[in-house]
Amino acid sequence: MYVSHPSIHPIEAPPLTDTAENALPRGRMEDIQGMPGTLGGLALRFVQFVFAVVSLCVMTTTSDFPSVTTFRYLVAAVSLQSLWSLSLAIADIYALLVKRCFRNSRVVCLFSIGDGITSTLTFAAACASAGITVLIGNDLDDCKENHCTRFETATAMAFLSWFAASPSFLLNFWTLASR
Amino acid sequence: MYVSHPSIHPIEAPPLTDTAENALPRGRMEDIQGMPGTLGGLALRFVQFVFAVVSLCVMTTTSDFPSVTTFRYLVAAVSLQSLWSLSLAIADIYALLVKRCFRNSRVVCLFSIGDGITSTLTFAAACASAGITVLIGNDLDDCKENHCTRFETATAMAFLSWFAASPSFLLNFWTLASR
Repeated sequence: MYVSHPSIHPIEAPPLTDTAENALPRGRMEDIQGMPGTLGGLALRFVQFVFAVVSLCVMTTTSDFPSVTTFRYLVAAVSLQSLWSLSLAIADIYALLVKRCFRNSRVVCLFSIGDGITSTLTFAAACASAGITVLIGNDLDDCKENHCTRFETATAMAFLSWFAASPSFLLNFWTLASR
Repeated sequence: MYVSHPSIHPIEAPPLTDTAENALPRGRMEDIQGMPGTLGGLALRFVQFVFAVVSLCVMTTTSDFPSVTTFRYLVAAVSLQSLWSLSLAIADIYALLVKRCFRNSRVVCLFSIGDGITSTLTFAAACASAGITVLIGNDLDDCKENHCTRFETATAMAFLSWFAASPSFLLNFWTLASR
């Protein structure tokens, strides 16, 4: 009996689905709400911007803030925070309009570094102002001569702006690390 | 002329080596110096601990620190930082002695959260103290009655402790994200 022995055997292809399934979640960045280019990210930027601007306005309406170095620093820090948040909010709106997400590693790195710097500066300013408001209000009990309520409000708003900025930084950093 | 049309064509197997090369660095965690269980990590813990203890000692030797809430908070924060850094330094020494690295995801997560909390508290305390020392030294120019130099030294040491704690947090967070 003659049985053909073909030189070319059909090679069983390794299952591609498994590899693809494993590779895909690593290769592509999932759309976690809060990342740049998502609605959550835009909401975070908006919250950061609003709280930073409110903090800036409340602090600048007090007449004696320039006499304290820390309050001047707070004004500078929340100004920077509001400008940064506004810029990234505009970038997010553009990304949402053209229905694209920021996938470029360099862009995410830039956003991450910028978020890290601005949120650290805002937090530092908020902590320093909190230290001084506590000193004036509790330790020296000197609220009659000072605008304690306004200082406290500006400090609280700066803290809230930092609270909204931290998730942006952590999510960007996470995205950068998990690429 | 008769030409055979085999129903089963030899399928070219996709190169497996490329996938394996891409998969390996993602699967295993590389030993970056500074991660828990490495010599760099132990050095970072040691630096954190030393600066936190120096800050604590300098601040507690001033007689009037309990009158300022922020300075009491600084003492609490650097105490926590020194205890945390000492604990993780002991864990690092153990890991180096048995020549193993911390690879468990939960352990890295715990270290990351702990580092995040302690370093944030230390940074907040350092910023608040810096605000007050600047207020006393520059704005009120009242260094004759206060231990300005000691307050400034304690604040600077707390900042240095935070500087050493940040890489630990960022590296742990990076490790957690890149798993």
